[in-house]
Amino acid sequence: MEKKPILTKEQIQEITKTYPTPFHIYDEAAIRANARALNAAFSWNKGYREFFAVKANPNPFILKILQEEGCGSDCSSMAELVLSNAVGSTGEMIMFSSNDTPLEEFAYCHQLGGIINLDDVTQVDKMAKACGGFPETVSCRFNPGGHFTMSNGIMDHPGDAKYGMTKEQLFRAYRILRDGGVKRFGIHAFLASNALMEEYYPRLAAILFKLVVEIKQELGITLSFVNLSGGIGIPYYPDEEPNDIAAIGAGVHKAYDDILVPEGITDLAIYTELGRFMLGPYGQLVTRAVNEKHIYKEYIGVDACAVDLIRPAMYGAYHHITVAGKENAACDHVYDVTGSLCENNDKFAIDRKMPKIDMGDYLVIHDAGAHGYAMGYNYNGRLKSAELLLKEDGSVQMIRRAETLADYFATFDCFPVFDELTEDGGMK
Amino acid sequence: MEKKPILTKEQIQEITKTYPTPFHIYDEAAIRANARALNAAFSWNKGYREFFAVKANPNPFILKILQEEGCGSDCSSMAELVLSNAVGSTGEMIMFSSNDTPLEEFAYCHQLGGIINLDDVTQVDKMAKACGGFPETVSCRFNPGGHFTMSNGIMDHPGDAKYGMTKEQLFRAYRILRDGGVKRFGIHAFLASNALMEEYYPRLAAILFKLVVEIKQELGITLSFVNLSGGIGIPYYPDEEPNDIAAIGAGVHKAYDDILVPEGITDLAIYTELGRFMLGPYGQLVTRAVNEKHIYKEYIGVDACAVDLIRPAMYGAYHHITVAGKENAACDHVYDVTGSLCENNDKFAIDRKMPKIDMGDYLVIHDAGAHGYAMGYNYNGRLKSAELLLKEDGSVQMIRRAETLADYFATFDCFPVFDELTEDGGMK
Repeated sequence: MEKKPILTKEQIQEITKTYPTPFHIYDEAAIRANARALNAAFSWNKGYREFFAVKANPNPFILKILQEEGCGSDCSSMAELVLSNAVGSTGEMIMFSSNDTPLEEFAYCHQLGGIINLDDVTQVDKMAKACGGFPETVSCRFNPGGHFTMSNGIMDHPGDAKYGMTKEQLFRAYRILRDGGVKRFGIHAFLASNALMEEYYPRLAAILFKLVVEIKQELGITLSFVNLSGGIGIPYYPDEEPNDIAAIGAGVHKAYDDILVPEGITDLAIYTELGRFMLGPYGQLVTRAVNEKHIYKEYIGVDACAVDLIRPAMYGAYHHITVAGKENAACDHVYDVTGSLCENNDKFAIDRKMPKIDMGDYLVIHDAGAHGYAMGYNYNGRLKSAELLLKEDGSVQMIRRAETLADYFATFDCFPVFDELTEDGGMK
Repeated sequence: MEKKPILTKEQIQEITKTYPTPFHIYDEAAIRANARALNAAFSWNKGYREFFAVKANPNPFILKILQEEGCGSDCSSMAELVLSNAVGSTGEMIMFSSNDTPLEEFAYCHQLGGIINLDDVTQVDKMAKACGGFPETVSCRFNPGGHFTMSNGIMDHPGDAKYGMTKEQLFRAYRILRDGGVKRFGIHAFLASNALMEEYYPRLAAILFKLVVEIKQELGITLSFVNLSGGIGIPYYPDEEPNDIAAIGAGVHKAYDDILVPEGITDLAIYTELGRFMLGPYGQLVTRAVNEKHIYKEYIGVDACAVDLIRPAMYGAYHHITVAGKENAACDHVYDVTGSLCENNDKFAIDRKMPKIDMGDYLVIHDAGAHGYAMGYNYNGRLKSAELLLKEDGSVQMIRRAETLADYFATFDCFPVFDELTEDGGMK
């Protein structure tokens, strides 16, 4: 799949007059188009809803766009619940899929009217205590254990994951919830991450639909929704093709018709909790080449670092890089593209074939829209950069300001140590 | 080496009346004792100075303790220079060892009178321009390339590291600096990380001392200092023994006597930039067991997560864990100890033999004093915890407050989105 920068070199030059590099840029039109394609793929299902995985990009402006496209919020913490509430996504627009959960977060979710997705059977009573009784709607997370192998041989290992309940625990949880007066039930499972396989959701759906039938037969509970969670991957490499979301929706539809309809279950809602798929390709990190170094390898130093995008450092993840204005130039140079951290894993690319890079060139790092800003740290005292939105009308709006030194030192504000900092975070 | 918690269970119970778990605790007496042992090991060298690697623990109270023990600051960014200045470490108490450096950081370091350690030959002119001329003292970073193998076979790969200059570039840089009027020169190199080998510093010193002789002969420059940088390791595992710092100091002394003294070089200062060695063992993360989960494995959920200590998630690093009050109990259970992140690498321990853990037990995670808080992120909207200091007089002082939701949402303060947050970061 062709890797296209959101901005042209000329647009970047114009933007940097106001917002210096590095910055994250998001493409509103593309985010909306993708969300609409997803909703269309599941439009056969009356109750379908995508709950955007806030952890992938916890920005209220992004959440608002997705909310306008009908998406709710998949939250995992107090901060994410607050964020969802701040943009007006409350009630059953909130799915609280958390684990090892502090009790006050159950209580706050319940106060907002959100749906709690229980990770463990031991949390059933804790949730009831925190919420002052059982909520009307509760979801339970299932972990089938073992491993999950796709037709291409790629395997994930749910049995080694900390999430969810065994089948016996799941049935036990539903019994307690049913007897406690819960009215609406859901089931949730997550078996694989970043699957670039159209078979993943349909196969997961089939597993869960069969459980829905079994739960109905054994417990007399007709579940209201199946939450397929996340896992739909995106093509980080240019030679990968994106998932066909329409085909995925059709595959889930077929499993529904094959398994549920014959059992007379026709109004089960499908939920998803996509993060990477919703935002990953529609955000890019724009940075500038500021140093070139020729030692035992060729290095291009840029003004962004792992603080802005940690995936290459943490996972060795590939992120494609385009040199703005050199989109069609021959890739006849080999570079390591590095940030400034005193940490040798702070490299955006290793031995990457690229066009000749000149100092001042803008590098566009692709697929940074999910788990980019969200996973940033402040190692080496480096500050996180701003987030910008390319709006549908072509204008650019700042949707998060860059950090200042005052932010970095904020947790010392109860001490007299940094009185010399001015209000804007600079030094007097 | 025995892994001893800084605090007893009773002390933790007392502290949690004021400061809830999780928190980082540092041991002032142990930090000072270790710094004194280091200084004693190099007391044969008149000009010796340790420049604490601020990136390992960027807390002004920690810096102040080390400053009182005679240590300067090894800074890598504007924020770390500001931090060093805030505790009064300026002038040649600052070593600025940075790479891919923004020009304004050279300028600010020069303004503070700090020593700039140049990472690359291309930075020579940039530095001069940023500083309005060559500073009186300049250091250059050397990278010998290839690999560096220790007698136990453990190998590091300087040739794959982005840092430093080749020998040819190093000599070229010194010539330019000499001709530009620089008066005092240093050399710096870093070949291995976390070396639990007493031979590392002496062998590195021998390489650099020979270069000092060669530089004197070839360029007529008598270097003023050799900066051995960091790399002295600590025993993360209980069956490892700590480095004997006195033996390391003696080993460097011998190389000095063997190589430099016969050449008439007798007043070269030795510098070090230790971070892990200065703080690692003297900080611990204290957390509470809040969930237990029995699925395909046994899980203990704690109230800390990778936000507080990312090394296990990022590097698969081992950190020893003691259950407070059960120091002598049999390790007859096997647990995964997990944080709450929706990220399966958020595990402080995997298949770890431990005593039976009961809910409410305090777990002490060892060797978190370096690259612990410093590398924290806010993934999943989780907030970083407080840092506490066990002072020499036995009292406990908070030296950094815990983050609040207001801190987490600070970069939205120019928007009206989070007006509902109260000043203390809670919700109205």
